[in-house]
Amino acid sequence: MTTPDSPPQTVYSFHDGDGKNRQLLGGKGANLCEMTQIGLNVPPGFVITTEACLEYLSSGTESHQRRHLSTAVMDEVRTHITALEKESSKRFGDPENPLLVSVRSGSALSMPGMMDTILNLGLNQETLQGLIQQTGDARFCYDAYRRFIQLFGHVALRISDELFDQAFRTIKQQQGINSDMELTAEALEQICTRFLNIVEHHLGEPFPEDPMKQLEIAIKAVFGSWMGKRAIDYRREFNITPDMANGTAVNIVTMVFGNRGNDSATGVGFTRNPGTGENQLFGEYLTNAQGEDVVAGIRTPKPITELEQEMPRLYGELQALRTRLEQHYHEIQDFEFTIEQGVLYCLQTRNGKMNAQAMVKTSIDLVKERLISREQALLRIQPEMLEQMLFPRIDPTTSTQPVARGLPASPGAASGQAVFDADRAERLGRTGTPVILIREETKPEDIHGFFASQGILTSRGGKTSHAAVVARGMGKPCVAGAEEITVDIRKREATVGAHTICEGDTITLNGSSGGVYLGEVPMVEAEFTDALKNLLEWADEASRLQVMANADSPQDGARALKYGAMGVGLCRTERMFNATDRLPIVVEMIVAEDEKQRQLALDKLLPIQRDDFSSLFRVMSPHPVTIRLLDPPIHEFLPSPEQLQYDLQQLRQLRGTVSGMNILANTVQNLFPADQLPHVQTLAESHLVDEAIQQKETMLNKVNLLHEVNPMLGHRGVRLGITYPEIYTMQIRAILEAAATCMQDGVPIEPEIMVPQVSTDKELRRIKQYVDEVQQQVEAQYKVKLKFKFGTMIEVVRACMRADSLAQNAEFFSFGTNDLTQATFSFSREDAENKFLPMYNENKILHDNPFEVLDTEGVGKLMKLALQWGRETKPELKIGICGEHGGHPASIRFCDQIGLDYVSCSAPRVPIARLAAAHSALLES
Amino acid sequence: MTTPDSPPQTVYSFHDGDGKNRQLLGGKGANLCEMTQIGLNVPPGFVITTEACLEYLSSGTESHQRRHLSTAVMDEVRTHITALEKESSKRFGDPENPLLVSVRSGSALSMPGMMDTILNLGLNQETLQGLIQQTGDARFCYDAYRRFIQLFGHVALRISDELFDQAFRTIKQQQGINSDMELTAEALEQICTRFLNIVEHHLGEPFPEDPMKQLEIAIKAVFGSWMGKRAIDYRREFNITPDMANGTAVNIVTMVFGNRGNDSATGVGFTRNPGTGENQLFGEYLTNAQGEDVVAGIRTPKPITELEQEMPRLYGELQALRTRLEQHYHEIQDFEFTIEQGVLYCLQTRNGKMNAQAMVKTSIDLVKERLISREQALLRIQPEMLEQMLFPRIDPTTSTQPVARGLPASPGAASGQAVFDADRAERLGRTGTPVILIREETKPEDIHGFFASQGILTSRGGKTSHAAVVARGMGKPCVAGAEEITVDIRKREATVGAHTICEGDTITLNGSSGGVYLGEVPMVEAEFTDALKNLLEWADEASRLQVMANADSPQDGARALKYGAMGVGLCRTERMFNATDRLPIVVEMIVAEDEKQRQLALDKLLPIQRDDFSSLFRVMSPHPVTIRLLDPPIHEFLPSPEQLQYDLQQLRQLRGTVSGMNILANTVQNLFPADQLPHVQTLAESHLVDEAIQQKETMLNKVNLLHEVNPMLGHRGVRLGITYPEIYTMQIRAILEAAATCMQDGVPIEPEIMVPQVSTDKELRRIKQYVDEVQQQVEAQYKVKLKFKFGTMIEVVRACMRADSLAQNAEFFSFGTNDLTQATFSFSREDAENKFLPMYNENKILHDNPFEVLDTEGVGKLMKLALQWGRETKPELKIGICGEHGGHPASIRFCDQIGLDYVSCSAPRVPIARLAAAHSALLES
Repeated sequence: MTTPDSPPQTVYSFHDGDGKNRQLLGGKGANLCEMTQIGLNVPPGFVITTEACLEYLSSGTESHQRRHLSTAVMDEVRTHITALEKESSKRFGDPENPLLVSVRSGSALSMPGMMDTILNLGLNQETLQGLIQQTGDARFCYDAYRRFIQLFGHVALRISDELFDQAFRTIKQQQGINSDMELTAEALEQICTRFLNIVEHHLGEPFPEDPMKQLEIAIKAVFGSWMGKRAIDYRREFNITPDMANGTAVNIVTMVFGNRGNDSATGVGFTRNPGTGENQLFGEYLTNAQGEDVVAGIRTPKPITELEQEMPRLYGELQALRTRLEQHYHEIQDFEFTIEQGVLYCLQTRNGKMNAQAMVKTSIDLVKERLISREQALLRIQPEMLEQMLFPRIDPTTSTQPVARGLPASPGAASGQAVFDADRAERLGRTGTPVILIREETKPEDIHGFFASQGILTSRGGKTSHAAVVARGMGKPCVAGAEEITVDIRKREATVGAHTICEGDTITLNGSSGGVYLGEVPMVEAEFTDALKNLLEWADEASRLQVMANADSPQDGARALKYGAMGVGLCRTERMFNATDRLPIVVEMIVAEDEKQRQLALDKLLPIQRDDFSSLFRVMSPHPVTIRLLDPPIHEFLPSPEQLQYDLQQLRQLRGTVSGMNILANTVQNLFPADQLPHVQTLAESHLVDEAIQQKETMLNKVNLLHEVNPMLGHRGVRLGITYPEIYTMQIRAILEAAATCMQDGVPIEPEIMVPQVSTDKELRRIKQYVDEVQQQVEAQYKVKLKFKFGTMIEVVRACMRADSLAQNAEFFSFGTNDLTQATFSFSREDAENKFLPMYNENKILHDNPFEVLDTEGVGKLMKLALQWGRETKPELKIGICGEHGGHPASIRFCDQIGLDYVSCSAPRVPIARLAAAHSALLES
Repeated sequence: MTTPDSPPQTVYSFHDGDGKNRQLLGGKGANLCEMTQIGLNVPPGFVITTEACLEYLSSGTESHQRRHLSTAVMDEVRTHITALEKESSKRFGDPENPLLVSVRSGSALSMPGMMDTILNLGLNQETLQGLIQQTGDARFCYDAYRRFIQLFGHVALRISDELFDQAFRTIKQQQGINSDMELTAEALEQICTRFLNIVEHHLGEPFPEDPMKQLEIAIKAVFGSWMGKRAIDYRREFNITPDMANGTAVNIVTMVFGNRGNDSATGVGFTRNPGTGENQLFGEYLTNAQGEDVVAGIRTPKPITELEQEMPRLYGELQALRTRLEQHYHEIQDFEFTIEQGVLYCLQTRNGKMNAQAMVKTSIDLVKERLISREQALLRIQPEMLEQMLFPRIDPTTSTQPVARGLPASPGAASGQAVFDADRAERLGRTGTPVILIREETKPEDIHGFFASQGILTSRGGKTSHAAVVARGMGKPCVAGAEEITVDIRKREATVGAHTICEGDTITLNGSSGGVYLGEVPMVEAEFTDALKNLLEWADEASRLQVMANADSPQDGARALKYGAMGVGLCRTERMFNATDRLPIVVEMIVAEDEKQRQLALDKLLPIQRDDFSSLFRVMSPHPVTIRLLDPPIHEFLPSPEQLQYDLQQLRQLRGTVSGMNILANTVQNLFPADQLPHVQTLAESHLVDEAIQQKETMLNKVNLLHEVNPMLGHRGVRLGITYPEIYTMQIRAILEAAATCMQDGVPIEPEIMVPQVSTDKELRRIKQYVDEVQQQVEAQYKVKLKFKFGTMIEVVRACMRADSLAQNAEFFSFGTNDLTQATFSFSREDAENKFLPMYNENKILHDNPFEVLDTEGVGKLMKLALQWGRETKPELKIGICGEHGGHPASIRFCDQIGLDYVSCSAPRVPIARLAAAHSALLES
């Protein structure tokens, strides 16, 4: 112990070190101390602190030769070695009963790039002989010795591994053997000699024989490795700052050997099955082997259950160890053990990594076993992890390799026949054939193809491209931007390297990893287990925030309910417009020459939309359903000018052909007398082609007229609603009439009308006028008193700035953080993700993609202001979020912290959001 | 006077009414009171208050018949009539010496749509005869009577004017005369009889004979007209709220007659010349005439100077009146007078409307004459008014009519030869030919054509289209979006209606009104007078805000200095890139395959940019020059894909022709023996065409690669600077080397480097690194210590939100409110102005175009926050604005109020901004 005058303690025995002080002792050191102190049989040892490391590093610069370990540290080390000697009844450098130790680095965070382990330190020519006499196993001893020389030479003395490996291979060749196992003691002795020569040649002096000298060199090498290039690079790469880990500790542990005969073994164990969560010991072991043999894969380990037959007593001890570990750590443990001549040692333990299913099951079980509380059960699972359970996925054991990789744009996996356009996808899909839609990129007019497909593959576009967003909304797997794939729509095939995917070929997508596979690949189904349901019920109880779903159809709504959504936070009416039976009417509405023509089309749409809403309300009853009025620019519903120009070109060619054929037919008819006329059909269809041409031309004109330079910032949302009042009025009528029919049928509902793209209070007031008028008419017609809410999206920056005045006419706000993020950054999502955003992320100019992770410092700050100003006007204002961020755990936490009432996300992310909402509430309190 | 028990006073004599209380007495009434009370000879009269009007209006609804005037009001009216009788020694309804009055409406604001004047009220069969006897002028009396009947009938009794006019025409026809002047007393009597019949027929009872009855009907009619449809519409249209004007007053004034003989006259006067500001009486008059004769243009009035000959005494009285008016009102007055039989009456006076030149001159003169203070001199001129003086304009006296109208996109006028592309404009411009560039719309690549042209005309695009913004920046007139004009670039002509403008035809543009004229139209030159300079010096002394100019070249800079700019607040380097000698190098830089190729192009640009900056610094010395690094997306420098496709099509056709000709040439050569070979040149040029095709194809590929969905939100500004560090580094080097050469030459300069499109501090820090590196190199090379500022545009919403952290690395902020407005509203300027913005303005959803008038509630609120947060980090942070709003007076006032240090605007708006800055400071204090 230190006194004010003595230097601070820099070495701690495993019996004394504070198992919680990872900063001082490193993760591994702290863990060894804790295990020792709770009575596990850990080989005796001690830790040299990170403070000693920092002191050492500051004692000199650049090359480690100039640095020196203070005598105080080495004095303490010697004191602790003496203690080790006492505890193990062996002595360091004792030729008869030598103490051997391992030396390992270990900082507060696990960090590759630092020094590896040195085993068997303490061996030299003398102690080697003592060990041979003591064990009577010369082969074992020479094997240990050659390992020590190479590790020490490479790790502590920086001699190239290749020199040792080459010498090793030469001896094996001389002996004419292939496997290390076949090496005799003599051969190993020869190897040791060669190795010692290599070191002497390199050092200019013999291999250090004094164990204490060996130890000092090893300690300095470990400390120095903290400032090695690899370690520095790693810390920079992963933003590891000194407050997270500063310096490395050194662990000195008495050697134990699992390769001391058939009463020795080594293995790894899980306290429960990490694949299923089942409550039974799980693991593998090797008899008469060293830990590194398991890792090297030289021998195949046996399942731990066999140990029960082989060493029943030790199996019992392992079971006891398992219980002890869980009771102490309150968590499933992944531990390493060695049995040396019938004695069980625990060398390492840490929290077990499990798949989602096992995490969920063990959460439930550990609560039942009273090992953890419900809160702990919720907090031990990262919300994102649940994604695994909610989508089918490629069987993790499959060996099939993908032919291409794109972005993992929407999770899950699917197999189906490749199809290159939405119409064919729909036709084929209707017959029940599983289909994968492949496009260069998708447009809203492809949406019926999405409905019909199992999955979507695009060769262009990012994780927030149209394909990706829509697929995620529908919970269908999508691989986007697979740029190695060249899609040729006209040939109806895709090529990737030497492979060609023709229409009808079966392919498989892994939307969770981005992989594209030829043929069908085995899959594992989604597992919405009882345990998961149970866990999420606990989550809901713990949460303050409500979780709603984005759903555009009754089917979506039903699925959202299954996932536990508390309602629909966003129903995008334009998705309904895109269905094949509606799109022609929508197009009719858009190309209408005047208001009257437009009204005719709207009259056809009204009953369709009313039925849509009515079904959705009924499915979701009694939960709220928020319906957003038409949002996208109307030209999105029209074909692209390129498509139209191509069609026109084809039609004009056809027109020529038809003319030619008609001339030919006439000529043929004129050649024969009427009674001998052969059967030649006149192609009088040219006027039909002319009509088609004219239609396309009209359409092209309209498309050109509606063209926008920056469509994101164009004529859309409420701006459409104000320039074409008849469109919004139709939608409002459809919503209110649907609500009226539900009320007549006694179905309890909570409809909400939401206006998109609002930037000023006057827009909102204008739309409110439409609503008031339609409400009066519908109430009179249906003889009901309608109850619903009226509110606005907050997705325009100005709406945030004017939240105080918007709150006067809105009963709720819903943050549209997709658009808001674009406007806040002045990044178009598509342009940014295709051009500079990856580079920005790589260079850490932006830490995350702000379209995936809510930018709390910019967008979030705007949200906070809007919320504050809105609630100043109307304290009871209901506020939510319906952008994609609504399904992202960190963003959910932010939303909860600033006081939102709900988040809304795509149905498959609802469980994730529910758990994230619980985390947020629990971490706050 | 009122006591607590008596009802409030509702009628005021001109001797008593409060001349400042326009709300109560109306503008005209208050004015008549004030004039009376300062001793001007105003015909006696009184005012009935607006309160009486409101009381009357609330006494009934809908039709005015149901409403009634309270007896209290009519009692007061009678009392005041009695007083009038006393003062004029006449009596109301007295057959021998009748009092006649006029009745006029008058609310707090001048407002068309309300009741017109009734003259000569008090006439009836009896008083008419009295008047005839009294004046001995039957013609005059019948003329007065017929005027009264028609005005009263039409105005007070709502009888259609057409009935009277028709009867009048009939009599004239019967008499066989053309001019009213020729009508005899008898004819006029006949007309009066007809008129009385019309009224009786319409009323169902005779024309009211009792003058007091006449008066009551007239008063009620005036009051009622406040709620007439035209008046209500007008108030709605111009947003006139009750606090601005509520109800109308009624003015009852004793009639005076300018048509009582050759010692009578009527006229209008200005106390100074409203066209030049010269300090001399200005005006016109008619002898023996009524005021309305002047207005009706029946006779041509004489200049007021002639009155000096005709009535020297009265001319002297007029001169005294002029002095008296200016001394009282401290402002140039526009007044009406009548001389009745040698007595001068003043009927009306108001502040004189003058052109800018006169306003400026009188401001200076009035200060010299100690009539007003410098502050008053500045405040009496609206800043926008100065625009007239700063650009040449169409001679206001011209009768030429425009053939088309577009948007007045950049003020001023210009004539020149029509030219349809920038290259030809440049070629022709170099020869000194004045040129007008006509395009459907312009692109940055057209900029060299702007330099060469006198003015720009486009058939598409709004007031903030590329053409408009660039033209304003250059101070060249521009008419944009003249949609009646069809531009056919290939035919090199424009058509509008039946007219065709061919290349080379002279046309004239009026950028201040939007007019387009065929041929040359006479013009008036700009007048940057000494008086204006003097005024603006006073403005600068009064201002807190500094006024800088946006200037992209030394020429721009010199002009900005002439206009009084305190430096350059924005130099857009990309404008320099667009010059014809540079564009090819810029294109080379963009299409470069790798960094090395790009560097080669940049190496060529470096000296060019360095010279640009050096010249600009020297011109502006010692003022600050803020240089913005490259901002627009680089694809803006490339030709459009449509252009390239067209070029390729042409080239491919040419390739075919060349091949054919080569074949032909070979064939011809083979036909002849070598010695008889005719002279046929082989066209071996096909490889040249191939090369051209390949170049175009490469370019098209690059253009397609760089295509962006929303270019506004794309890969531009600092994002380019980070992805292509070599571009920004070149620009920074050019700036700092230019600065170094200036320093070597002892030229004092203040360079500032500004980074566009910044959204996060890390971007700024990255560019700062470039700057630091280049600075070290340049300082070493030139052996100078550089002094300059580093700062950022604030044009991205996120930059506002992160202003606190941006201020750490920025020495100044410059608000780019053009982009900021787009991002705040989520409106693309082009799409908004072409699609929904006009409709939004019309429907009052937005009061102004936010791209012209700063949206203080949204964009301004963001600016306030950014300023506050930025100065919290760095109190000395210099903050300005360089968007177009920097030249708009209301926006300048806002900028001043929130604490900006400077505004920067296009050079021709600098004087306007200087005056606006002074206004802001003066109105604040």
